[in-house]
Amino acid sequence: MSLSSRAFGLDWSFFKITIAARHFLSSGLIPFSMSNPPPAKTAITPRRDEDFPEWYQQVIRAAELAEPSDVRGCMVIRPWGYGIWENMQRQLDAMFRATGHRNAYFPLFIPLSYFAKEAEHVQGFAKECAVVTHSRLEVDADGKLKPASALTEPLVVRPTSETIIGASYAKWVQSYRDLPILINQWANVVRWEMRPRLFLRTTEFLWQEGHTVHETEAEARAETKQMLDVYERFVRDHLAIPVFSGEKSESERFPGAVQTLSIEAMVQDRKAIQAGTSHFLGQNFARASGIQFQNREGKQEFGWTTSWGASARLVGTVVMMHADDDGIVLPPRIAPTQIVILPVTPKEETRAAVLEACDKLAKELREARYVDLPTEVEVDRRDLGGGVKNWEWIKKGVPLRVEIGPRDIASGNAMVSRRDRPVKAKELMSIQELVFSAPEILASIQQNLFERAKKFRDENTCIINSRDEFYDFFTPKNSAKPEIHGGFAVAYWSGSREVEEQIKDDLKVTIRVIPFDSSAEPGQCIFTGEPSSRRVVWAKSY
Amino acid sequence: MSLSSRAFGLDWSFFKITIAARHFLSSGLIPFSMSNPPPAKTAITPRRDEDFPEWYQQVIRAAELAEPSDVRGCMVIRPWGYGIWENMQRQLDAMFRATGHRNAYFPLFIPLSYFAKEAEHVQGFAKECAVVTHSRLEVDADGKLKPASALTEPLVVRPTSETIIGASYAKWVQSYRDLPILINQWANVVRWEMRPRLFLRTTEFLWQEGHTVHETEAEARAETKQMLDVYERFVRDHLAIPVFSGEKSESERFPGAVQTLSIEAMVQDRKAIQAGTSHFLGQNFARASGIQFQNREGKQEFGWTTSWGASARLVGTVVMMHADDDGIVLPPRIAPTQIVILPVTPKEETRAAVLEACDKLAKELREARYVDLPTEVEVDRRDLGGGVKNWEWIKKGVPLRVEIGPRDIASGNAMVSRRDRPVKAKELMSIQELVFSAPEILASIQQNLFERAKKFRDENTCIINSRDEFYDFFTPKNSAKPEIHGGFAVAYWSGSREVEEQIKDDLKVTIRVIPFDSSAEPGQCIFTGEPSSRRVVWAKSY
Repeated sequence: MSLSSRAFGLDWSFFKITIAARHFLSSGLIPFSMSNPPPAKTAITPRRDEDFPEWYQQVIRAAELAEPSDVRGCMVIRPWGYGIWENMQRQLDAMFRATGHRNAYFPLFIPLSYFAKEAEHVQGFAKECAVVTHSRLEVDADGKLKPASALTEPLVVRPTSETIIGASYAKWVQSYRDLPILINQWANVVRWEMRPRLFLRTTEFLWQEGHTVHETEAEARAETKQMLDVYERFVRDHLAIPVFSGEKSESERFPGAVQTLSIEAMVQDRKAIQAGTSHFLGQNFARASGIQFQNREGKQEFGWTTSWGASARLVGTVVMMHADDDGIVLPPRIAPTQIVILPVTPKEETRAAVLEACDKLAKELREARYVDLPTEVEVDRRDLGGGVKNWEWIKKGVPLRVEIGPRDIASGNAMVSRRDRPVKAKELMSIQELVFSAPEILASIQQNLFERAKKFRDENTCIINSRDEFYDFFTPKNSAKPEIHGGFAVAYWSGSREVEEQIKDDLKVTIRVIPFDSSAEPGQCIFTGEPSSRRVVWAKSY
Repeated sequence: MSLSSRAFGLDWSFFKITIAARHFLSSGLIPFSMSNPPPAKTAITPRRDEDFPEWYQQVIRAAELAEPSDVRGCMVIRPWGYGIWENMQRQLDAMFRATGHRNAYFPLFIPLSYFAKEAEHVQGFAKECAVVTHSRLEVDADGKLKPASALTEPLVVRPTSETIIGASYAKWVQSYRDLPILINQWANVVRWEMRPRLFLRTTEFLWQEGHTVHETEAEARAETKQMLDVYERFVRDHLAIPVFSGEKSESERFPGAVQTLSIEAMVQDRKAIQAGTSHFLGQNFARASGIQFQNREGKQEFGWTTSWGASARLVGTVVMMHADDDGIVLPPRIAPTQIVILPVTPKEETRAAVLEACDKLAKELREARYVDLPTEVEVDRRDLGGGVKNWEWIKKGVPLRVEIGPRDIASGNAMVSRRDRPVKAKELMSIQELVFSAPEILASIQQNLFERAKKFRDENTCIINSRDEFYDFFTPKNSAKPEIHGGFAVAYWSGSREVEEQIKDDLKVTIRVIPFDSSAEPGQCIFTGEPSSRRVVWAKSY
């Protein structure tokens, strides 16, 4: 049973506390709350409670995760940020394989005529398309370089690949014996972005997109749900992110889909962020692309397709979820380096011995594997001040820092710091004990990050029973700290699109998911009083 | 010491045999030779000696590696082909990491003004550029979809990333302390292709490109050579491909480079194929991008840069190198599946027992790891004829096929076929022995593929001492089998660009590499009689 369905299967009593009481319950572990003011001096300026969007940019800059490029809307992912993405890729890819999927690769360019085949689809993406119109450069009479040969048909740089992949599937699928087709693609896609934000919204972004074809509607629906569950497990167990999962309302569906499922996380400014989506496409795209097969009765039938995707936006989600006012805090499972060893070498005569002890410890720690992943250990031998190096690794979010100096060698000890604890909370530990317990400490950090994220999410999720309460919930109380308000509002809704539009216009709040909840009790829409089959989750979002 | 430098350090006596004698020495292991006619019936039509280019296409189609897409010049890489590429990526990536490199990701689009910064560079790529000129689609008055918003500056879809990556490096590099920068990128690039060929030449292709900056010329030159050596080791030890390595002549250099190094393989039609290149860029691109640093003397200096790349063209190279008239033959190290088990189930009553025995064997074989790679084992349970399934796996090039039937269970035996031996050469082997010796058999296949490729390459590499002999070497003797001629000609050349152009015009033959050969003896150019410091390697090429 998934986490969220468990949560939604409960009686919701936890969420039924009053809004006024909520702030006093905020977890002490999360400094970003009104009841627990952060210390005066932090590595990141501004702090989260001062200016959340700017704090986010500064955390990314300080950790050297990524930076804007001069190409409008595109970003450069630096090695530390890309290392996180590579770990996510590797681990998610293994889950795709385990569920029978294989990777393939399809063209970057989509002929305009293909792209136009599914009407809702093209409408949904037309405003965001980058279009290749020429295939050559030449120098004009003024000596200026310019595009030369116009293409007979313009090419769209893929914003998503349903139509181009559909063209191949139409050739591959002849009979029910050719089904299912279970393929995933790791790729870059382009959606023109007017207001880019590192990792969250960029013109070019990296993602994976799964595209499957099935013999029956039931199989395709089961696949759609299965892949949502894969995402939910992945972000929970690997990224330490709790989510609510469910279905999107019609207005938030993927263009051309019959049903869109989503997992939604709450980050530290209490907004929602979509962390993965899975779409049941019915026969819409099969019809558009001509994916037809002879069924078991010998008749021609259109295939039932799905698509599902998650992107490097997850890196930004991890930052917004776990980082603090000193920089990123990385879940050990996806950290490019789990443990950094900092040699303390005040005197030249003991330097060699300290470095030797560090290398020996690194070797032993590498062999102490954390779950099924290698433990990456780095000895930072750079000739910089110890404080400078220590702060660099704090800002980069390395889960465990170990300092070893001349006196430690004699005593067989090391000074150990966990990134999920305050910076000054160092612990003296015998090196022998450290080697023995390192995997356990890393597992405990992973677990702690999840638990405090879940506590924060739960504390900021409220069942709301009236329109007034709803509007109040989403209205900032403290103009100096506008981020500190709102959260997930769980409220009855009748299915009315007009209500959705009104709320969006008034509050910038949307329905994030209609939870899977077989035990839901019917009620009345808090806005219209119309009958409603279940409560849905509302929030401001990225 | 690298393989080729060893080869070139020898006295070349092996290559000094006459052209006439060569054909009689052709390796019996490689059916594609005049002395060893292939059997009448093969899985691939046409055979290699009938029509090599068409055979190549058919091998790829039969193995479901890839296929052309409707987007001109672009291809679809199917799961089996992509699985090979993923294994190549993983293994090459580990070698990059071991030499201190980290991955990052830079934008797909390059503003036209950046691209134009290095004059030779833009000239070299102008004819192949795909250009994005618009950022939106709209429906015009006739109801036709067309590009809408023109960009103020056109964007080039990267054909290679020196200029866009240089813009980032210019920001990152301030002092000699910031150097070296050692970064690699796995990416798609686009070079407009008028005559596409699957894997070898496509408009969009997948590759990696390393881009480094160094403090000194010597360091950058050492990096350039180091990465060529990495490529040479990779193709030798992982792809079973022997190469000659060396420097390119000026006319074959990467546009903007000071020096281009290359590894060149000989495939079965005796043509050369470039399998990896490494460029020393001097300060050309640093000057163009403004990559400057304060050196140890406190003065501003331009960085010394390199770039190096290998692409999914290597998949095509493996096909042309090792495939036979029955399909691909995969080196075990890069096969997506090393061993396939084919249950022989003629009767329903023994079916369950056979399947159980197959699963048990698969489990045991998976644990018998081949070197440091997992052994991927697949039990093909599909309900198809045994012959059909067997031939599918032959065409896909799986290194080892194992058949188990009802009688085998009783006797504890299995029928084992190595893909590097003729299709009918099956061997009865006890299952116990198979489990024990599987890693060794796979290693032996890997070794055998390398050795027969090297034998073929060596047999078709000749030292040539006169112009007439050179022209004769590259002229088809048998009009029915035009592919069976030529090879690598090793001949003195004075460095004249006119000679290169003449030979290219007359024979479509170019200098593939100027070998690294410190012990080279000077001689005279076979075309002009001018003094020459060393022999160089000539060939027709892909």
